[in-house]
Amino acid sequence: MFIRKDGSTVMEKKLLKEQSAAELGALLRQTQAAYDAFQAKKLSLNMARGKPGPEQLDLTMPMLNTLAADSDMISESGDDTRNYGVLAGIAEAKKLFADILGAKPEEMFVAGNSSLELMFACLQIAYVKGIAGCTPWSRLDKVKFLCPVPGYDRHFALTEYFGVEMITVPTDENGPDMAVVKQYVENDAAVKGIWCVPIYANPSGIVYSDDTVRAFAALKPAAKDFRIFWDNAYCIHHLTENPKKPLTINQACAEAGSEGIFYQFVSTSKVTFPGAGVAAFNTSKANLDELCKHLGIQTIGFDKINQLRHVRFFGNADNMRAHMEKHRAVLAPKFAVVLDTLEKEIAPLGIASWTKPEGGYFVSFNAPKGTAKRIVQLCKEGGVTLTGAGATYPYKNDPDDSNIRIAPTYPSVSELTQAMELFCICVKLAALEQLVN
Amino acid sequence: MFIRKDGSTVMEKKLLKEQSAAELGALLRQTQAAYDAFQAKKLSLNMARGKPGPEQLDLTMPMLNTLAADSDMISESGDDTRNYGVLAGIAEAKKLFADILGAKPEEMFVAGNSSLELMFACLQIAYVKGIAGCTPWSRLDKVKFLCPVPGYDRHFALTEYFGVEMITVPTDENGPDMAVVKQYVENDAAVKGIWCVPIYANPSGIVYSDDTVRAFAALKPAAKDFRIFWDNAYCIHHLTENPKKPLTINQACAEAGSEGIFYQFVSTSKVTFPGAGVAAFNTSKANLDELCKHLGIQTIGFDKINQLRHVRFFGNADNMRAHMEKHRAVLAPKFAVVLDTLEKEIAPLGIASWTKPEGGYFVSFNAPKGTAKRIVQLCKEGGVTLTGAGATYPYKNDPDDSNIRIAPTYPSVSELTQAMELFCICVKLAALEQLVN
Repeated sequence: MFIRKDGSTVMEKKLLKEQSAAELGALLRQTQAAYDAFQAKKLSLNMARGKPGPEQLDLTMPMLNTLAADSDMISESGDDTRNYGVLAGIAEAKKLFADILGAKPEEMFVAGNSSLELMFACLQIAYVKGIAGCTPWSRLDKVKFLCPVPGYDRHFALTEYFGVEMITVPTDENGPDMAVVKQYVENDAAVKGIWCVPIYANPSGIVYSDDTVRAFAALKPAAKDFRIFWDNAYCIHHLTENPKKPLTINQACAEAGSEGIFYQFVSTSKVTFPGAGVAAFNTSKANLDELCKHLGIQTIGFDKINQLRHVRFFGNADNMRAHMEKHRAVLAPKFAVVLDTLEKEIAPLGIASWTKPEGGYFVSFNAPKGTAKRIVQLCKEGGVTLTGAGATYPYKNDPDDSNIRIAPTYPSVSELTQAMELFCICVKLAALEQLVN
Repeated sequence: MFIRKDGSTVMEKKLLKEQSAAELGALLRQTQAAYDAFQAKKLSLNMARGKPGPEQLDLTMPMLNTLAADSDMISESGDDTRNYGVLAGIAEAKKLFADILGAKPEEMFVAGNSSLELMFACLQIAYVKGIAGCTPWSRLDKVKFLCPVPGYDRHFALTEYFGVEMITVPTDENGPDMAVVKQYVENDAAVKGIWCVPIYANPSGIVYSDDTVRAFAALKPAAKDFRIFWDNAYCIHHLTENPKKPLTINQACAEAGSEGIFYQFVSTSKVTFPGAGVAAFNTSKANLDELCKHLGIQTIGFDKINQLRHVRFFGNADNMRAHMEKHRAVLAPKFAVVLDTLEKEIAPLGIASWTKPEGGYFVSFNAPKGTAKRIVQLCKEGGVTLTGAGATYPYKNDPDDSNIRIAPTYPSVSELTQAMELFCICVKLAALEQLVN
């Protein structure tokens, strides 16, 4: 501990493992005092979900002017977007999403406001009716899904809903461990799918390498109804000026001749409005035809007016990408606050690691083993709600109690600065409690 | 057959059963000639579905001006409609639909663009997870639903999807035969539900009598997870100036203490835009809480901006009812064409019966037994597509091959006039073919 000229103290920054018991004890008291001071501020901030902030939502407000009382409401294919019909979405929306993904328009299905809803529908159809001529999952003793970790809690909730056994797969900076994936997928016919967020993964922010994508395309599943659930939620959500251009699953599978192996999901939830955007779905024509037969039972169709509103607003994929630059201008400084604060406050202590994403909505933080729950609890009691510890693992069970998803997008920069200060205090406090007690 | 002064002939209008074989033979040739003349016109009209016509869609175009780039997007409950959250819908939308139905706002769930999607969700939850502590339907040997006939083909498709055995229940002008309903519901625990369209039923247009509604509320189901699927799709879709005010299921069940027995569905599909309207759902708070737990897995939330757009456009339930007067002005003349043509062309022959609805979207036509399929085929070959014969029965199986759903809303009055002329020719032709051959 240093004593400043004004008499205040500064916490020392050196590796915790190199500090003596006395030093650690002093640091614990010091950190506890800093925590108590924070609690007295009675903050109430929420960093639990990957929600865009209000200034991002403002970016899309002009879209509400796109359609008005005197607008032409007929789609390019001649359909009245105001009436029933056109289950798979209007032609110009299919083209827009196809361009974004690098897919074929005839392999697109443009739907309602939620890609999660589409993932649910794909699982439900396999569960209730079966796909590709296979037995419905509801009639099988055991259905398994691979879950690269850390991953997205809502994915895991979907598979848990259908009683699917979830098997964790480790990931590194190139994506899931493909040797493990291949071993399961090619040898166990009970393995029916895998959850993937290939670009700026939730929560790690990593981008699957081209080799990883090729390895996915090369899989020879034991189960005919195995599908890769390729949730491309952040495909154009860059935080850097010159983003990577990863290999698409479409190209990789076209080259491998395995077009039917994936279901790809995308949405404008974090492009336009979360909850009032447009979600879309991409797979082989044969898969699409099969799914449409079932989807046509549960709905007459999706909101084509909102599809038209989006297409008229953007015009084309390049304009949508340009719109994402505006999001980047809002978000990049927020990610900088997170990374700078961690670098300054935690890095010198040598107790934790975290990802430095070039896109997406999250930073994945690995706290000292056995402290994640405690950190989240401390933050909550200090006025900042984080994603629950364990949420990034199936069954909310992080065996190391280490991973925490940091979601910096919703708070303002000044709120986030405070929240990250508190977060770092809580990380230190939890680490010190563990070391000292 | 009369011969006019100009030499043209007029078909005689007397009861077919009173005509001689020679008269019938002549009438058949005459009708065949009329049919051939129609075919030569090469019409292409579609009366298959209950679709609003373009002039009805125009009525709602001003709604697209309701929200613009400078609009306040915060709901009355303080939620930003542009962001995630608020699964059960915004407060003002709950109030609007509650007022329309005579329900409590806290018992409303306001969702996306499709009430069919909500019905599907209710079935899916019972099938996959089970409700009210009961065994999921997927684990039962037999699940049954009662299906008042004639009924709505999309309802039947939903229950068929889940492998539910459908049992037909006869209906009259007061609704389903409640003695039959009671017998099944109170004695067979495999009976889990019944499909109802209580106001201007699809396709008969009948309104359930207050006694019928009370009999529903008084049911003591053998199955704890029995629910009345009360599809109030046409609750404000009147064709007369002074519509009936039927007893609501809400009031009847409140009086009987059976609030949890029904799921009620409603939407603006035929108030604003089909496919871009807002659907809502009403049931007891306990049922709603249970369903929300499950719905929250499959979606983060529905399109709240479209909910806000609707609420801001209408302001209140009275204004929505006033909006329906504009629809009536468009639709009443179309129903008049149908009923007048049937009255003039078919009534004198004594071969068929039909309903004279005071609201809704359909006329239910009962052709001579064994001729419905033939009539639909003749119409199709003559250029007018009708709803498939049998569609109004479970498994598309009308045992009498008699019922045809007439959907007069989509064509213009002049198209409809032609279509109904053809329809009557086809009815006569099919009846005569049967009598003569």
